[in-house]
Amino acid sequence: MGFSLEFLGTGDSAQVPVYNCNCIACLRARSDESLRRGPSSAVVRIAGQQWLIDAGRMDLAERFPAPQITGILQTHYHADHAQGLLHLRWGVNMRLPVWGPEDPVGFADLYKHPGILDFSQTWQPFESRKIAHVTVTAVPLQHSKPCLGYVFESAKGRCAYLTDTVGLPTETHEWLQQRPLTYCVVDCSHPPQDSTPRNHNDVTSALAMCEGLDIQQLYFTHLSHEMDQWLLKHKNSLPSHVHIARDGMHLFC
Amino acid sequence: MGFSLEFLGTGDSAQVPVYNCNCIACLRARSDESLRRGPSSAVVRIAGQQWLIDAGRMDLAERFPAPQITGILQTHYHADHAQGLLHLRWGVNMRLPVWGPEDPVGFADLYKHPGILDFSQTWQPFESRKIAHVTVTAVPLQHSKPCLGYVFESAKGRCAYLTDTVGLPTETHEWLQQRPLTYCVVDCSHPPQDSTPRNHNDVTSALAMCEGLDIQQLYFTHLSHEMDQWLLKHKNSLPSHVHIARDGMHLFC
Repeated sequence: MGFSLEFLGTGDSAQVPVYNCNCIACLRARSDESLRRGPSSAVVRIAGQQWLIDAGRMDLAERFPAPQITGILQTHYHADHAQGLLHLRWGVNMRLPVWGPEDPVGFADLYKHPGILDFSQTWQPFESRKIAHVTVTAVPLQHSKPCLGYVFESAKGRCAYLTDTVGLPTETHEWLQQRPLTYCVVDCSHPPQDSTPRNHNDVTSALAMCEGLDIQQLYFTHLSHEMDQWLLKHKNSLPSHVHIARDGMHLFC
Repeated sequence: MGFSLEFLGTGDSAQVPVYNCNCIACLRARSDESLRRGPSSAVVRIAGQQWLIDAGRMDLAERFPAPQITGILQTHYHADHAQGLLHLRWGVNMRLPVWGPEDPVGFADLYKHPGILDFSQTWQPFESRKIAHVTVTAVPLQHSKPCLGYVFESAKGRCAYLTDTVGLPTETHEWLQQRPLTYCVVDCSHPPQDSTPRNHNDVTSALAMCEGLDIQQLYFTHLSHEMDQWLLKHKNSLPSHVHIARDGMHLFC
């Protein structure tokens, strides 16, 4: 018994296409739906349960009519990861667990008016919880708000989902070093920059943060349109185990 | 030369259907797209310009590819009226005017990270501005946040858009008494309540706030699913000049 992860969105906060942008990446995405990138998020399917990683998409009620969402693993409370909660909260006759980091602010007025959302089960760093036969562990990331990655483990393999982040805290890197990963999904928002990026990885820091880790397949997500532009010319320069995530892509573990 | 108003959304913050609700109104809306209600908002078309009233819909970039939105007339900064700005702001190569009330808080981190949005042109109470041949006036409403209605006037007629509100401030009622309205669009979120409602009109207070005004056609908007349930039985009890707004409906002035 394994689990699967489907990318629901693989873009940054601006998404691809960017509003009013006519760069080659945005033009292509506007004419070919398969090249679009929604807000970075995913659904993990475990023994009939569906856990969202983040709720930045605004079509969640349409896409996952109740009671199809078991709960939400929230990485952090920036708008592009939490805005879908603004509508879902006004559902009725149910409670929807949102397991996220301790963050005194949260997003907008979600804590003040949570509706059906239950924010009470926050994660401690490196805490593990069982979802059916899968162990999920929350690992701290480096971002401008409290932010967690999630590592899913079954007898069939291990998958880490690590966005938003720039590099990794030392303790998270050390924890991951002990655990070979079938899949590692990482924030790679930017093409290579001249200086160390802030808040989000560029290609250089995304590859650097994975050094010393045992990763079979590495997936970049949270891509900006500049990153898509860069890939049109430089995709072949990436190591062969590096893949570019796409909305709708599935990983099976 | 006149203008037109199209309702983009006519629901309350929960929209219709409500997530996980199986009431008769939500079941009907789920099976018949024409009965759905998105976040209350509209587009006013004036001589080739398109001004949105509120930005609560999350499909604005798809529906109005740049540069189709001239600007946004923001009634107030609650999530269901402002959440669409979270994405639009990250557009490029343009400025998008958002004319709203003075509100020191705004919504989420929009003021901190406005991107292409220009919030500088706030309205004074009863201030008028010209948009081509149409005069637009901002009138104060009664709500839990600073909130403005908008009155559009051309040689062909006058249309008032008054949501979110419960009743009207005396000075707004007096101002409107002097000005016959071809159309008046008002917040009617709730079926008749036992006690005076807070923040949003029920049927009783919606009708009461229009007493003394010269209105040819009155449209209810911002409807909850409870209001839709009530209408299934009581629609015929409403005065003959009262209509129920629907997403996609047009008014021509």
